[in-house]
Amino acid sequence: MQDQRTYLDFNASAPLHAGARAAMLAAMDCPGNPSSIHGEGRAVRALIETARAQIAGLAGVPSAQVVLTSGGTEAANLALAPDMIVQNNLARFSGLFASAGEHACVLGGHRFGADQLQIVPLARDGVIDLAALAKMLTASPQPVMLALQAANNETGVIQPVAQAAALVHARGGLVVCDAVQAAGKIDCTMARLGADILVLSAHKLGGPKGAGALVLASPATHPRAGLVRGGGQERGARAGTENVAAIAGFGAAAVVAQAGMAQEAVRLAQLRDKLEDFLRDIADDVVVFGQGVARLPNTSAFAVPGVSAEIALIGLDLAGFAVSSGSACSSGKVKRSHVLDAMAVDPGLAMGALRISLGWSSVPSDVTAFADAFEVIVRRTRRLKNAA
Amino acid sequence: MQDQRTYLDFNASAPLHAGARAAMLAAMDCPGNPSSIHGEGRAVRALIETARAQIAGLAGVPSAQVVLTSGGTEAANLALAPDMIVQNNLARFSGLFASAGEHACVLGGHRFGADQLQIVPLARDGVIDLAALAKMLTASPQPVMLALQAANNETGVIQPVAQAAALVHARGGLVVCDAVQAAGKIDCTMARLGADILVLSAHKLGGPKGAGALVLASPATHPRAGLVRGGGQERGARAGTENVAAIAGFGAAAVVAQAGMAQEAVRLAQLRDKLEDFLRDIADDVVVFGQGVARLPNTSAFAVPGVSAEIALIGLDLAGFAVSSGSACSSGKVKRSHVLDAMAVDPGLAMGALRISLGWSSVPSDVTAFADAFEVIVRRTRRLKNAA
Repeated sequence: MQDQRTYLDFNASAPLHAGARAAMLAAMDCPGNPSSIHGEGRAVRALIETARAQIAGLAGVPSAQVVLTSGGTEAANLALAPDMIVQNNLARFSGLFASAGEHACVLGGHRFGADQLQIVPLARDGVIDLAALAKMLTASPQPVMLALQAANNETGVIQPVAQAAALVHARGGLVVCDAVQAAGKIDCTMARLGADILVLSAHKLGGPKGAGALVLASPATHPRAGLVRGGGQERGARAGTENVAAIAGFGAAAVVAQAGMAQEAVRLAQLRDKLEDFLRDIADDVVVFGQGVARLPNTSAFAVPGVSAEIALIGLDLAGFAVSSGSACSSGKVKRSHVLDAMAVDPGLAMGALRISLGWSSVPSDVTAFADAFEVIVRRTRRLKNAA
Repeated sequence: MQDQRTYLDFNASAPLHAGARAAMLAAMDCPGNPSSIHGEGRAVRALIETARAQIAGLAGVPSAQVVLTSGGTEAANLALAPDMIVQNNLARFSGLFASAGEHACVLGGHRFGADQLQIVPLARDGVIDLAALAKMLTASPQPVMLALQAANNETGVIQPVAQAAALVHARGGLVVCDAVQAAGKIDCTMARLGADILVLSAHKLGGPKGAGALVLASPATHPRAGLVRGGGQERGARAGTENVAAIAGFGAAAVVAQAGMAQEAVRLAQLRDKLEDFLRDIADDVVVFGQGVARLPNTSAFAVPGVSAEIALIGLDLAGFAVSSGSACSSGKVKRSHVLDAMAVDPGLAMGALRISLGWSSVPSDVTAFADAFEVIVRRTRRLKNAA
């Protein structure tokens, strides 16, 4: 690894923000179990409740509607269940609809059986096909649950969650919105999204790895049963002594992200647009995925025909740049993206897909330095091809 | 709260050890998702694998036999399932036997149904009744799973896990040992305990809240299915981006605890014995629970007849002492201990049960200062009673 590194993979995991780091340090210095009734216990309990309110602020809901979890994956697992309490009544969903671009943990369906999962297609631009959703709703026994991302992790494409939710709600269904990539980057208030449940993760927005949350639009609509059972923490939704330091860091990161969101969106979009200008300059046949539609300001997914993502990734890593070939998958291998497949991207082109994702510590020189390094790789590849 | 506090509640949660704190800080400064293939990803992956080996050292097993979780409760939930893979074959357990002194999360049974749970009684000294266990094993369809603590969290009483395991194994059963309170305090190597699965928690041994582990005696015996599903982390046993900082802190704490264990056991037992001398001096009718049997060196559970735990706790907290009335229960209320009930302690006496638990930062003056404060409370209570 180079000493001087340029980190361009915020969508995989954002570096810890200084504000989150400070909150974690303060929490780490507090002994005590949040369930203990003495002063030390009450002090760490207070840290958790402060963080809960800060996280609730991202969604604009009362803090009692936030369930803290060990991460986004656990939160998604809690939400994706055929039995839910909806408006204080037990509801049974006949199936789970998931957009083709959802994260692997959502496409797993969790407590839904494999035969209960139906995939809602994306258009070529990466946006959910609302007409197809409407048709599927008409054809399916009711009610269904829809899992739809606020924004895609690989392409940054923003989904019309409120419009999809209107269709689903008209037929008595429920919408679970994976806002892991969108929270802190664009407005993810529950009122704007129109969803019933949001899934959040701390480490995508400058908080620590190991904390997430389920956010409920109404306290009367929530998972029927927890996954991790035992103690009564999180009102029975999640047993176990709370991860106080990570939760405190999540809360602080939420505040920082929320406060700077509007300005950062402008700043990062400028950097991203500059990057894409450079890319077109390097290779005029570059394809930027989802370019024609609304995207997260920090994300650019692209491919240059003939340039393999795997080779580019390794070359960039050696040159000191951390980028991604799409989602950071748990196997550590570069696989063809299911998201680009769903967008009907040519399979050969998809194998060249790279993702640059920016964030709070990104500066203009990151983008220019990346362009320099990427240009070397593109030219070398084409030289080798011409020589062959 | 007093400015000068004395923390005597290590069994609820131990203050973070300096070594664990340093490891967490180093991890917090590493960006990157452990599933990413670039340098930053590989660096945080390496932190996790170092910690896994350190945690494995507590149990004396290869690190591949450690499954990292969000805490002891999640680990216990993973282990307590009627379907398990035993020696590479699917095994179905007819029931769960749990000692009457197990933690609430174990007594919940989790993936076992309520009708599948049978309680193994304790003797009056707090030790599991092995004769009763043998009888229950004979009377029950095979195989069964036994959940038995290495040591009790409230009384510190050490259980004869190896002897119980021999009985269970003779009938083809499996032993899950909750070593949350014992690890780092007494020898918890798998070979000594003779169990099949151990449950560990970081924050009981000087690590952070929010990390735990399942330790397998053999890689061929493990939970059949994970609870949190999605990505393939922890070989499919636990999806979701790893809590890198907490895991690193857990590893470092395991090393510190293991290295100092023999010396600390002597030092803390001396402090604990001094405390119990003081208690007998303050009230000669004090009852120390489990006094006649092997206990953790750091734990003392006791009651003075006529002195309510709730009132003592509040008085001690105001005077600057953090102690417990038994287990830190998630409701934050003082309830009568199910452990003392199982030991046939008089219910009135049990309502006076206090627990002092010591650890790495405990010093002799903690114990003398506590004795001074407790004596004031005992005398006041008795004066009020005499006046009435």
